Amino acid sequence: MKVQVCIIGGGPSGLLLSQLLHLKGSDTVVLEKYSRDHVLARIRAGVLEHGFARLMREAQCGERMDREGEIHNGFEIAHDGVLSHIDLHKHSGGNSVLVYGQTELTRDLYEARDRLSGKVVHNAEDVTPHDLTSDRPYVTYRSNGETVRVDCDYIVGADGFHGVSRRSIPNDVLREYEKVYPFGWLGVLSRTKPVSPELIYVKHARGFALCSLRSQVLSRYYVQVPLTDKVEDWSDDAFWAELKRRLPDEVADRLITGPSVEKSIAPLRSFVAEPMSYGRLFLAGDAAHIVPPTGARGLNSAASDIHYLYHAMLAHYQDGDDSGLKGYSAKALARIWKAQRFSWWMTMLLHRFPDRSEYEERLQQTELEYLLSSETAQRLLAENYVGLPF
Amino acid sequence: MKVQVCIIGGGPSGLLLSQLLHLKGSDTVVLEKYSRDHVLARIRAGVLEHGFARLMREAQCGERMDREGEIHNGFEIAHDGVLSHIDLHKHSGGNSVLVYGQTELTRDLYEARDRLSGKVVHNAEDVTPHDLTSDRPYVTYRSNGETVRVDCDYIVGADGFHGVSRRSIPNDVLREYEKVYPFGWLGVLSRTKPVSPELIYVKHARGFALCSLRSQVLSRYYVQVPLTDKVEDWSDDAFWAELKRRLPDEVADRLITGPSVEKSIAPLRSFVAEPMSYGRLFLAGDAAHIVPPTGARGLNSAASDIHYLYHAMLAHYQDGDDSGLKGYSAKALARIWKAQRFSWWMTMLLHRFPDRSEYEERLQQTELEYLLSSETAQRLLAENYVGLPF
Repeated sequence: MKVQVCIIGGGPSGLLLSQLLHLKGSDTVVLEKYSRDHVLARIRAGVLEHGFARLMREAQCGERMDREGEIHNGFEIAHDGVLSHIDLHKHSGGNSVLVYGQTELTRDLYEARDRLSGKVVHNAEDVTPHDLTSDRPYVTYRSNGETVRVDCDYIVGADGFHGVSRRSIPNDVLREYEKVYPFGWLGVLSRTKPVSPELIYVKHARGFALCSLRSQVLSRYYVQVPLTDKVEDWSDDAFWAELKRRLPDEVADRLITGPSVEKSIAPLRSFVAEPMSYGRLFLAGDAAHIVPPTGARGLNSAASDIHYLYHAMLAHYQDGDDSGLKGYSAKALARIWKAQRFSWWMTMLLHRFPDRSEYEERLQQTELEYLLSSETAQRLLAENYVGLPF
Repeated sequence: MKVQVCIIGGGPSGLLLSQLLHLKGSDTVVLEKYSRDHVLARIRAGVLEHGFARLMREAQCGERMDREGEIHNGFEIAHDGVLSHIDLHKHSGGNSVLVYGQTELTRDLYEARDRLSGKVVHNAEDVTPHDLTSDRPYVTYRSNGETVRVDCDYIVGADGFHGVSRRSIPNDVLREYEKVYPFGWLGVLSRTKPVSPELIYVKHARGFALCSLRSQVLSRYYVQVPLTDKVEDWSDDAFWAELKRRLPDEVADRLITGPSVEKSIAPLRSFVAEPMSYGRLFLAGDAAHIVPPTGARGLNSAASDIHYLYHAMLAHYQDGDDSGLKGYSAKALARIWKAQRFSWWMTMLLHRFPDRSEYEERLQQTELEYLLSSETAQRLLAENYVGLPF
């Protein structure tokens, strides 16, 4: 097979890039290790930056998102038994975020690829990039016992943290930066009406909690747990009881509980790999960076990469201008690190850190008090939460 | 002796409060452990918030300050060999800071006290507050071998970190919060023209540096040093050489060096004691809190306490309203913690931390890049640097 761009990974990043390039006449293939059903079963993010939503519309995938997604102009911070509202719309100069589940978004992208007869290969085993620093890189994979070779101009590694792409960059080139937080999030998805139309981030002496949602009939709740906890330790009843303990009474009283549709514990980690390109390979999304979920930067960081990569490839194929591709890693990383900074800040602001000194606990409390007392501080939060300019 | 308010400590906080109260008809005495010359020989802060300058004018001590002090509308941050300007005036909505040495300010306050024949006792030994929780507290001290008793309505402890006042609060009431930084500042005062009309804060791989000044003929420079360094290890030549290494070339080239008038190493520490009142004792300034000097909050934090205490005492003596005195500790601490937060943030932003992970180093670098790229972030810095509203 011969294409212009071979994209490894059929998650939202890879699909979005392939769709955008296809619309501009570039030939791509997406190689996905798993089945479509498997990809669509992943429960992930749900808060989209306004710039991401714009990119979805540009990819002609925005129709259902705009119909079913919910515009959120703010969120709540629960602390000391009360709710404080953060007005994103006002403080970001009129922007907002869109709540729309990653699963739905991925479904829309698959359907868009189908409509255009985009090439998406599922169950592609042993995907391997070759000759990255040559002018003629290629990718091989196995399918139904046969080895297939894809010749291409460029390879995009959008295959997540555990994918092959990042590992294809030599060790003496790749640098990895990591921070592990001493806790995880126990998450429950339930087919219940969300307790609040907006997200509620909860700072509590027992630990962080989050009331989130995917739609008006699908709620997503989290509580901070020690890394030693196992999901089997947590019955649904125990989860709801712990969540209620961390919520202000007025919120706990109106919480509708129900059986969990999904329940899992995710550790919190920050990770960045540099550079994000090597020869003709370009990394995007989780393949190059991970954030803790606080502040919803994960999927949005991936979209940021796709924005830069799409425009760089457009410049190459339409104008023969390679400066975007050459500058991709530096440009993408500059924004990625700012998203890392924001995720770190919001994680530090709201979680319980068991090994913190009393001074540091008071600093954390002051950070929140200052945030709630200063319009400038709320503006800073808002400009990060709705997404920094590209 | 009988006065309304007995003030322990003849530094700027105590003198300013005594002057302000005197002008409103309240009778005070200031008890200072050392001689006036000793107090005036201390080299300390030099950057005054605009609100502090206002308080000095209200105390009728602002004339020389306004004539000789320099209005600073901004400062520079040096990093990666370049200077980036922070426009305090623009980003704080028209405010600024005043550069005027603490020594000069203290001299003005002494002269003002003299003009009004204010009672200031020097070389007061063994100052001891008594009966703090009674209606009739008093203070004793020794002078020329004799014990003197001062009966009063209220006692103000403005006697610094090592003073007796804080230690007069019972251990089961007092809580102390502390953070020690793993480095100090080696400071040099020299009778040379400052290298820059504005302050330059320097982030450098070898460590932090600061180009500050007291006037156009008196410069104050600092370099971050390990806590194990001794001032005897540092010749003037070694100091200037190290400072130059950390400055961008354009700044180093125009640095005028000279013999040091004063040279010392100060450790960096954050400290807060709570509550700031106990019975009829009220703490102010370093007696209750210490900040690292980054961001110049030390003297300004003391002025913040004096502002609240002055207005609380005014309400008591003029209107019989004690709510200000009752609420003093909580109100003062709310602002003090915000100044602690800002000092911590600016210290973390600019210093080299030997035990930081690579991820944390990149976060620090990102914090600076974000600051310099976001007008909102610069506004946040400015509103803290010129002084949060009282």
